[in-house]
Amino acid sequence: MGDELIEVPAGLRKVVVTTTELGDVHGDEGFYHYREYSAIDLAQARTFEDVWFLMFEGHLPAQAERDAFVAELTPLRALPAELRPVLPAIALAGPRFNPLAGLRTALSLLGASRNLLPLWDTDTAQHRADAKLICAVTPTILAALYRIRAGLEPLEPRADLDSAANWLYLISGAVPDPKRARAVEQYLIATVDHGFNASTFTARVVASAGADVVSAIAGAIGTFSGPLHGGAPDRALEGLDEIGSVDKVDDWVREKVENGDRIMGFGHAVYTTDDPRSLMLRDIARDIGGDLVEFATTVEQRVVEILAELKPGRQLYANVEFYAGVVMELCGIPRALFTPTFAVSRVVGWCANILEQAAGGKIIRPSARYVGPTPPQPVPAG
Amino acid sequence: MGDELIEVPAGLRKVVVTTTELGDVHGDEGFYHYREYSAIDLAQARTFEDVWFLMFEGHLPAQAERDAFVAELTPLRALPAELRPVLPAIALAGPRFNPLAGLRTALSLLGASRNLLPLWDTDTAQHRADAKLICAVTPTILAALYRIRAGLEPLEPRADLDSAANWLYLISGAVPDPKRARAVEQYLIATVDHGFNASTFTARVVASAGADVVSAIAGAIGTFSGPLHGGAPDRALEGLDEIGSVDKVDDWVREKVENGDRIMGFGHAVYTTDDPRSLMLRDIARDIGGDLVEFATTVEQRVVEILAELKPGRQLYANVEFYAGVVMELCGIPRALFTPTFAVSRVVGWCANILEQAAGGKIIRPSARYVGPTPPQPVPAG
Repeated sequence: MGDELIEVPAGLRKVVVTTTELGDVHGDEGFYHYREYSAIDLAQARTFEDVWFLMFEGHLPAQAERDAFVAELTPLRALPAELRPVLPAIALAGPRFNPLAGLRTALSLLGASRNLLPLWDTDTAQHRADAKLICAVTPTILAALYRIRAGLEPLEPRADLDSAANWLYLISGAVPDPKRARAVEQYLIATVDHGFNASTFTARVVASAGADVVSAIAGAIGTFSGPLHGGAPDRALEGLDEIGSVDKVDDWVREKVENGDRIMGFGHAVYTTDDPRSLMLRDIARDIGGDLVEFATTVEQRVVEILAELKPGRQLYANVEFYAGVVMELCGIPRALFTPTFAVSRVVGWCANILEQAAGGKIIRPSARYVGPTPPQPVPAG
Repeated sequence: MGDELIEVPAGLRKVVVTTTELGDVHGDEGFYHYREYSAIDLAQARTFEDVWFLMFEGHLPAQAERDAFVAELTPLRALPAELRPVLPAIALAGPRFNPLAGLRTALSLLGASRNLLPLWDTDTAQHRADAKLICAVTPTILAALYRIRAGLEPLEPRADLDSAANWLYLISGAVPDPKRARAVEQYLIATVDHGFNASTFTARVVASAGADVVSAIAGAIGTFSGPLHGGAPDRALEGLDEIGSVDKVDDWVREKVENGDRIMGFGHAVYTTDDPRSLMLRDIARDIGGDLVEFATTVEQRVVEILAELKPGRQLYANVEFYAGVVMELCGIPRALFTPTFAVSRVVGWCANILEQAAGGKIIRPSARYVGPTPPQPVPAG
């Protein structure tokens, strides 16, 4: 081949595929950031739309920028007319509701319908507009699929509600109370991005070939749906259901560990300390309060203690899934929409990465080492 | 972060992301192989189904295996009933026909409908069955989308025709003559796989997260649709149309080069000599014969000569796109289906890679180097 292949750790771990100005994770410090700001600080102090603007534009919006951005988003949130006749077939496909596959199908159709511009093209303003549409319409589509599957009419977003309140409204048809809307908003902000995770990488690979925004998002959704990607808060909550009561925690954890099962909601590939998202979501959950929160905090404490005893040195803490499930349950989000709620925010992170990749990237095309029998062998007659 | 980031060439060029037993490309030698066989030898000696079997199973089929495989494929080729009502909306979406986006939309819906098994699961027989379905149904869906867009009724595959003849039949409604069916079959065999290209890599990244076959294929289709991926034989043929007659070749090439435009159908990222697919397709085209073939071979010769003069040392030869377009035109494939014809074969290569990744892969999750302003900066008040 002329030049030599380069061997690196399995799974490209720690291999630098690009530079980024979007953010990073400091796993040992329990810290992550969007651009130059702590993501948790942003979740405490800002709106989802502010953070969305920050990710797309590189700075937090001034008042006039915020107003213009919100005004631009409002019409983009509407349920696309061309999707309406097809949504029932998408929502009702298959024996179990699959909202991520449904979102991918609907966005794929929308992309063709709107004739999105390839990222290869140099009209970055159009790419930005395409990305805004995809992010704005994602919660509307997901909620519509959920309601159709549940036998309800899909709803149109309300211009008087922000992204988080709209998400809750589109699901339930009721305007949420401000505390719960804000809780969901803080969750959304905290999950917009998280370093260079596998779905974000997928989005950048597709974008690097010059395809359109929807092609990259469709790829990212696929990776995101993979069980190894993580981010399935419903699984963590199912664990709480299984345990049932505080006196059963110890036996449940020990049995899981003995069977070699993973305990969903604990441990993270990058954090070796508390997941900062988990700490924030625990505070949010406590602020709302109730029996579930009491139970969850007790379970968390015992699980961490038992894991420290059974797996010394492994540093297993509650991850974002654990309290995310609790917060979403408290806010009335149905469990089928826990992971899709994660997608509602992460699509903004994916799009920011896609726009950054399109602005300065080279096609991402690694190599494989062939290890089969030596070619060419003669082809035997058929 | 504890351990250090690893710097590698841009775009992960030459970085080994996995081992593979599926094949490789020797760019300097003008040679590529599937498993231990020259891909060109396979195209000369075998059927598309034989090569498909080879890619999935690791060996060429014996007669009984071939019969069982073909019998298994026949029902899988049928137009899925659940797609029928939705195909018109997919086919007619948007101002221009977008068969790749349409294929992705339809497969995404089919995947949800059939409740495909995540690759994370250990039931590899089910994964293989899912992959066969996706490969078998891809030409049926593409041809149906084309016919609906053209105002025609979609057709059902015929059990008495093989993959290549079915593809031509599903497009036109006529059983093709054997020479043209075989020409298309050889093209399909020659484009099943080609080392570790960007769409194949995308499929493996999605698969590495444990998602299902359709998720990985949807990602691959996105990358494949990117203008930097290559493989758009219609663009090469448009070049022949633009030139129009032999006496205009020189001016046309010189103008392109002066304007810094790429000449579609010439040059390849990996081959520094003749593209072996191009040589085979030229022979196939000559065997069919006609004015277009005469014109194309004259143009090829002049373009290579002029490029050698204008860009000395660049070693620019006709690539797979150039004669692929000629062969497809001679076989009556409409230009809108040139690139989709490429997808009809490549989906087999993607699936073989997905199955290999699922069998032994680790999640592919590289890193990015943050190069923005130092965090954390205080978040200004909104």
